[in-house]
Order: sequence, then C-alpha cells, then structure tokens
Amino acid sequence: MIVIIQCRDRVGLVAAISGELTHAKLNIISMDEFVDKANNRFFVRLDVEQTINKQQLEFELKQLLPDDAIITINPVPEKKIVVLVTKEYHCLADILVRNYFKTLGATVQCVIGNHDTLADVCRRFDIPFHHITHEQPKEQFEDAIAQAIENYTPDYIVLAKFMRILSPAFVARFEKRLINIHHSFLPAFVGASPYRQAYDRGVKLIGATAHFVTNDLDEGPIIAQQTIPVNHTYTAADMVKAGREIETAVLAKALQLVFEDRVFVYKKKTVVFD
Amino acid sequence: MIVIIQCRDRVGLVAAISGELTHAKLNIISMDEFVDKANNRFFVRLDVEQTINKQQLEFELKQLLPDDAIITINPVPEKKIVVLVTKEYHCLADILVRNYFKTLGATVQCVIGNHDTLADVCRRFDIPFHHITHEQPKEQFEDAIAQAIENYTPDYIVLAKFMRILSPAFVARFEKRLINIHHSFLPAFVGASPYRQAYDRGVKLIGATAHFVTNDLDEGPIIAQQTIPVNHTYTAADMVKAGREIETAVLAKALQLVFEDRVFVYKKKTVVFD
Amino acid sequence: MIVIIQCRDRVGLVAAISGELTHAKLNIISMDEFVDKANNRFFVRLDVEQTINKQQLEFELKQLLPDDAIITINPVPEKKIVVLVTKEYHCLADILVRNYFKTLGATVQCVIGNHDTLADVCRRFDIPFHHITHEQPKEQFEDAIAQAIENYTPDYIVLAKFMRILSPAFVARFEKRLINIHHSFLPAFVGASPYRQAYDRGVKLIGATAHFVTNDLDEGPIIAQQTIPVNHTYTAADMVKAGREIETAVLAKALQLVFEDRVFVYKKKTVVFD
Amino acid sequence: MIVIIQCRDRVGLVAAISGELTHAKLNIISMDEFVDKANNRFFVRLDVEQTINKQQLEFELKQLLPDDAIITINPVPEKKIVVLVTKEYHCLADILVRNYFKTLGATVQCVIGNHDTLADVCRRFDIPFHHITHEQPKEQFEDAIAQAIENYTPDYIVLAKFMRILSPAFVARFEKRLINIHHSFLPAFVGASPYRQAYDRGVKLIGATAHFVTNDLDEGPIIAQQTIPVNHTYTAADMVKAGREIETAVLAKALQLVFEDRVFVYKKKTVVFD
Repeated sequence: MIVIIQCRDRVGLVAAISGELTHAKLNIISMDEFVDKANNRFFVRLDVEQTINKQQLEFELKQLLPDDAIITINPVPEKKIVVLVTKEYHCLADILVRNYFKTLGATVQCVIGNHDTLADVCRRFDIPFHHITHEQPKEQFEDAIAQAIENYTPDYIVLAKFMRILSPAFVARFEKRLINIHHSFLPAFVGASPYRQAYDRGVKLIGATAHFVTNDLDEGPIIAQQTIPVNHTYTAADMVKAGREIETAVLAKALQLVFEDRVFVYKKKTVVFD
Repeated sequence: MIVIIQCRDRVGLVAAISGELTHAKLNIISMDEFVDKANNRFFVRLDVEQTINKQQLEFELKQLLPDDAIITINPVPEKKIVVLVTKEYHCLADILVRNYFKTLGATVQCVIGNHDTLADVCRRFDIPFHHITHEQPKEQFEDAIAQAIENYTPDYIVLAKFMRILSPAFVARFEKRLINIHHSFLPAFVGASPYRQAYDRGVKLIGATAHFVTNDLDEGPIIAQQTIPVNHTYTAADMVKAGREIETAVLAKALQLVFEDRVFVYKKKTVVFD
Repeated sequence: MIVIIQCRDRVGLVAAISGELTHAKLNIISMDEFVDKANNRFFVRLDVEQTINKQQLEFELKQLLPDDAIITINPVPEKKIVVLVTKEYHCLADILVRNYFKTLGATVQCVIGNHDTLADVCRRFDIPFHHITHEQPKEQFEDAIAQAIENYTPDYIVLAKFMRILSPAFVARFEKRLINIHHSFLPAFVGASPYRQAYDRGVKLIGATAHFVTNDLDEGPIIAQQTIPVNHTYTAADMVKAGREIETAVLAKALQLVFEDRVFVYKKKTVVFD
Repeated sequence: MIVIIQCRDRVGLVAAISGELTHAKLNIISMDEFVDKANNRFFVRLDVEQTINKQQLEFELKQLLPDDAIITINPVPEKKIVVLVTKEYHCLADILVRNYFKTLGATVQCVIGNHDTLADVCRRFDIPFHHITHEQPKEQFEDAIAQAIENYTPDYIVLAKFMRILSPAFVARFEKRLINIHHSFLPAFVGASPYRQAYDRGVKLIGATAHFVTNDLDEGPIIAQQTIPVNHTYTAADMVKAGREIETAVLAKALQLVFEDRVFVYKKKTVVFD
C-alpha cells in the first residue's frame, strides 16, 4: 500500500503520520520525506506492508494534518495510458514492448497518431490505433483527440514524440496528466529543431527532457533529464539518431517514476523520490 | 544537530523516534530511513533544526529502541584526519586544497609518507609531514605509523594512494576508521597494477573505488565508485593518467559523505544517505 | 564504400594507401587509423565517396601492403544475423523493433530459443522462431542449434541473453561471429548470477559488457561496456531490473559498431573506431 | 613532433600530406583527420616520431596544399598561461597544483585577480599574483589587466571563474587566446546566476562549459562540457557547491586538450581530436 501526502509544513508531521500508521498496526517498509523550505511545503511517500480500510485511514490522517493536505492512499496500482504519436517510432515501440511484457507499470489503452505511420506496429501488439489527421482546423483536430482520449479515461496521456503544439484549452482539459518527451536538455534549445540548433551551436553534449505539459511551451515541471556526449563529427542528422536512444531512455525512466507514484508536482517543479 | 541510529528493525521505530523528537519540540529538517530486510536492520539519519541536551535525548531514545541500538547524537561536526601517502600527489593535493579553503568538512592534522616526495607540498600548506620509511621491518614500520597517528587522535585515517599493504594488526588498531582509494572498479582488478590488468584485458571503462579497509584485501565496505570510458588508444600509462582524475573525484566524494555522517557500515556493506 | 585493413606496421602505410586511393580518383570522406605499438599492428578504416572495381583495388593494395594484410573492401553493407535467446525479452525485443523499423543495420533471419517463451513476440514481427530445448544431450543440443544457424548463413550470431554455456567445439564453428551480452562490468563478476554477486559485494555501480565469444568463459574481446549507479536500497532483483536497461543499451551500441564495420579484433582485444 | 593543418578540402589531401611525410622519412604515430562537409573544410593532426627541419617541411607542405592552409609544425610544446580570477578558488587551485607537479602541460606565469582573495594560495606556490581592482573606470581596469598580461606574453589567458564581463576591445586584443569556464551547460542559463536560474527551473542536471571567448557573451566556440545529476533536495547554494566539482573537471579537460594542440577553431565551433 502506498500513501502519498503533500501539505504545508509544520512541526510534528512525521511523528503524527507515523504515529497514526503505528496505531493502525501498519509497518512502514520505506518512507521518503522532503520539506521544501522555500515554499514551506511538506511531501511524504510511504510504502506500507499491510493493506487497510482506505476511508478510515484517510479520515484519521485528515484530523492530524493541515487543512490543505492532499492525501492519496493506495493510488491506482496499474495506471491506464493513452499514447500520442506522429511518425517517429522509438519511444512508442519501447512503450509497446514493455506493455506487452507487463513491465511498463501501466496499460496502454490506445495510440493516437496525426499520421498513420505507426498504425502497423500497434496492430502487431493488438493495441487500437486511431488516426486523427492534423489537416483540419486546429480546434476540431484537438477536439477529436480529446474525445478519443476521453473514451478511454486514462490516468495519463503520453506524448511520445507527438510533434504538434497543443492549445491552452487542450492542456487545461488534461491538467497534470500530460507527459511529454522533449528532444533537448531543457531549457537549452526550446522549440523546434533542437538538434539543428545544437549542431549550429557546436555543443559537446545533447540531451532529452521528460516533463509535464503546461501552457508555457517546454516550461512544464521536469521529471527526468539525461545527456550524452557528441562531437564535431556529428551532423544534425547524427544527433537526431543518437538522440533517439536517450529520448527513449529518459521517457521510460520518467514513466516508471510517475507510474510508481514517486513524482509530486508543486508549482513549476517536481519532487521525485527515486 | 544530526541524529544517527542503527538497530534491529521492528514495527513502530519511525513513530517512536519522531514522536520523541516532537515531544522534545525538535523540528526534523530532513530524515533518511532505510530497512535492510535481508538483515532485519534499521538505519535512520535525522537532521534536526534545534540543539538540545544530548545526554537527555540519548537517554530517552534508549528507552524506546531495541537494546542493540547504536545512537549517535551530534557527532563531531568537524572531523580530524591523518593522511597516508606514498609518491602520487593528486588525491593528497586535492585534500590539502579543500582543507586550506575550509571546504573539506574535516581538518588535516598531518600527512605521513613512506617516501618524502610529498613533503614539500605539505610544507607549502603548513601541514606537518612525517617521513616513515618502509625500509625497515614491517612490524616496526607499521608501529611507527600507528604511533604517529595516535599522537593526533584523528577520527579517520585516509589512505590517499598509500601503496603498502597493511597488516591485520594495524587494520584492527584503527577499525572502521581507515578509508582507502583503490585504483579500479572493485571487484575487478583486485591487487597490484590494476591499470596494467585493465589494459591487458582491453576494457572500455576504468574505475575507482573508495572503501573502508578491512583485513580482506580490497574487500572492505564500498563507499563510492565511478567509471570513465577508455578505448584502444589508451596505453596502460594513459589509463594511469586518466585514472588520477577519477580517483581524486571518488575519494573526494567518499570523504564528503563520511564527514557529513551519511555513511553507515553494517557487515561488509554500507548504507549511504546522499 | 568502406575499406578496412589490418596488417603489421611499417613506415609509409598511410601514404601508400591514401596514394593508391587518390590515384584511383577516390575521395576519402573519413579515415580512422591506429597503430598498436605493443603489437606493431596497423589498423585503418576508410569511408570513400565513390564505388569502384573491388577486385582491382584489392589487387593494387596487396602490392603495397605487408603480406599479412587483411583487406576488406565494401563489406556486406546489410549484415544478416541469427539471435539466440532463453527467456528474457529485453535485448531481443529491442533488436526486433530496430529490425522492423530498418534501423538495426542488419536483418534478423531467425531467432532460436532453448525455451519457447519468446516465440510469440517473434511471430508478431514475422520472424521465424525455432525452439530447440536444452533438455537433450549437450552435443545434440548444440548440433541442432548449429544446423539451424547454418540454414541461414548469417554474418553474426547474437546471444541476446542466451543463458547456456557453449562448448569450445560450437564456439570454434562460429569463430569471431558470436556476440554476447554479459550482465556485469567484466571482468568483475564472471560467471553465473552476477547481480547476486554484485548485491552481496555492495557495489555502487552495476554494468554490462558486450563481447565476442571465445573459449575462455567471459574472456572474449570486449566491444562495449557501460555502468549505472545503484545504492543500498537495491535488492538483487532491483539490480536485475535496472540491469536490463543497460544490457539493452550496451548490446545495441555494440551491434551498431559491428554492423558498421567499426570493430577490429586482434588477439584478445578490439580496436573500435567510433 | 606535432603537425597541425586546416585548409579548404579537396581530393588527395591525405595522400599529399602523408606522401610528403613518408618522403621525409617520418613515421606517423597517430593521425586524426576530419572534413567538415558543410563548410568544405579539412582538419588534420599528425603525431610524428622523428623531429625534422621545421622550415623545410613547412615549405614543402605549402607547395602541396590549398593556399588558405594554416600549417603549424611543432607548436610550442610547453604553453605559457596567465590566469584571471575573482574570489572562487577551485579552478585556480586545481591549475596551481597541476602546474606545481608538472602535469598541467603548461606553465603558469602569473595570476591576476580583481580581488586579492586568492593572493595567498598563489604565494604558497611561488606564483606572482597581481591585484587589479575593478573599482576603477572599466577601460582603465581592462587596460591594466591587458598590460599585466602582455608583460608575460602568454599563449593563453585562462578565465578561471573571473566574474567580470570583458569588453569587445579586450577580447579582440587576445583573440582566440581567451579560455573561459562558464557555470552552466550552455546555451542553457546564459549570463548571471546560472545556478539560481537552474534552481528556479527545477532542472535535474547541472553542467559546466569551457569555451573560447568571443564578443557574443557565452557564445564562444565550445571546447568541453559535462553535466551531473541534481534533484529537488538541492538548494541553489547546493548546486553552486556541486557545480564547483564539475567546473574544475571541465576546465581541466579543456586545458589539457588545448595544451596538447587537439583543438581547432573554425567559425563558431571547434574540432576536438581527443
């Protein structure tokens, strides 16, 4: 059983929470705790051995904690996701393989593509693929996607190299549920063609960033980042190719962290207990 | 104030400890906790805002905890160390620089060398250097070193590229206080000339390992490790040169962890809260 | 066009080779050259813009080079491979995905498993799967595998988590064509259960090694290696899980290098032009 | 003997150069060659066993190469440098230690600081320290520095955490000879307080960049870059502290590359043969 809490900080929170769990005869296997001093904010994640009446525990904890406490007990253990793609296969294929072998920590409900390039690989894994072309008015395009998503009620929507910029309205509709992989070490090379920008600048490292999507383009809370070395022999195309490996790895890592309920979002940042 | 505890595990330890701290009106800034299930062992490190009567808190905690509990409250904040060297300068110089600029987290009391190669750099930083040659019977040699160390009562003895193997008697005399940097990614290339071994094997990475010294050669509890890439163009001498950078970095990292009381030793392993 | 040469070293080899290419009006796009001084051995890889009569160029080069020269001009650009597996899916699935999307740099002809666990994923990608059980006399088992391989005449045989030890006779039959992924940073943790060994030793890094197979178990020439950090919270099972990511990445990297003719084997080591 | 050439590309350059060296009975130990196709530019670095009449070889090569060829034969093997600092010690101390132990690959002639904080550490290593305060008109300040530098005729001027922005006039005066360490992974966090920016953005990696200085602030050709992981527990001050380690390492690496004549500058980028 996982218990997740965030609230404003005050003295005695750990004692209050662990006291309550002990009182309920629950054994804490592991406990991650963090206080953001700058924001006076308390975060805790508890892995508890036994299961218990969820309503009861939530009720008891509410009595002990500040009134702004967000308490999640035993979150959906197997998340459901919808994946949005364009043409690039690498992140999607990695997700499909893990889904098939049951190591993703989530279930892929469907894939939506603005091109149909990746329909066949989905079919091979018996995953529904919906082709919704972007060659229609943007509002209509996004509405079609939103409806397709809502047919499945996923916990998260994963933008696995989905190359269209989403409107504020769309983002608001799926707040805190949209996870994107950006092909640069943000905040370097915001926006389009980051590898071309990286090539032109002559950098010696390229990177990838997985983040929650907000309305500030490429400004959402960062979940995971990684870099790899490049050198003068790399063309922009070589960087794209090398970048695929790291994009796949970073998105896989970020999804694992989110699906295991290790990521808290607060304001423009994340707290990640890994 | 730092509070460190290790003891056998049982239900309610976190609640007991945090309850006691709250009762004493102490605010927990950060708390790291780990239960080694395989050994049924509990480890906790608490960073507490206020200071308090040490004896009193220790007494109270002892009542609450299993009888094998090792409790350390407010450990020596500024450790004292003695450094043992042979001829190689890189780890020593890094320690002397940090010591001089007060970023080591410890005070270097003296340096002992079985060669006098490094006497001058110590003199430049006003650190006493004792030359104790190994060209004497081993027992006598080690006894001279041990006495030189004991004149200073250091918390730790750092083997910063000290190239002599120490006898079990010597190791026992300074149990859990000897920290060594080994020039390989242990357990690969145990023993002498690890870079020569690495070259002969044609590895694509070389590494360094900082560990506590026990009587099993290169088998002591590992504190920190790191690797860097090498390739076919590296001679054994090039590996030695590249290895210096990583040896310096790994030892510096390990010392920082130890000096901030973040390292627990239990059996042949460490728990490191970083 | 790729030209690969290895031979004993002598003065003037670069001039002789590049002179011959210029004479043939060929433009060198890139050239990697290495002299192993310890073995007096010369290695060169040339990427040439134009194509040319292969026999002619080989004949001309032979006149100019030492008589032990091994010259390969325009090697098979699209290698064919057979993959051997047991039960673990991660390396195989990565290979199948790249094969399907034509980014592997090779064609997978078939997969052979001593269990049938991975038959279905192969079927989904239309790749023939041959189940050859190890529950038969070893000689017979290996003979069945060898015959299955030889039906396809692959350039390389990839052991993608194939968990059986192969006999010297088998290895000799496919000399320099067997590529294995070992789940440790060799030469640490040779042999069985390296993650268990790593857990017991309390290492702070785990690794993976891709190498050519020779008759010395886990002693073959190393192509690529990588490590990732672990800590005291990792059980042996957690290390296995984290190790999967790195095994997949290292094998993918090694295969790319081999398939692009960037790897030379000489004695127990490799020269890798990356 | 090192031979370095850059010129516009054309067919036969490698053959012409290596032919000339063979003709002069010189043995090429190692050769790095790169053609920048986008700029049609050829770069080569040759490590030659014997020494030879420099004028003679340069004359011969000039006959063979395009007229824009920049040929450097046997560059100053031991570079001379002047180091500019403000208050932070870590990069300077690393340079002083390597200088003292003769592993820097260059000789430190003097240190110039706009504060006198680091005078004492220089004195301990017998290196002249010049205190030139910035509390004077900028032109006068820079002129004083320039004159102090020119008294020593250094090959390179290293900005080892020199925290003042230099005017275009100053930069022009020491064109291609100014090497800076910037405390971020450029182009992320250009300008002041990059660690504060990184903290505010919630990045999961921080970095450092060594580059040649040009008049575009933080836009000079990049020599080396590196990143290290950080997480939500890092304050901006913690990032500064962690960043010190990587700044020191990256600057040391960049200096080694430059001092061994492995770095070519062309337009806004570098070619680095490492």
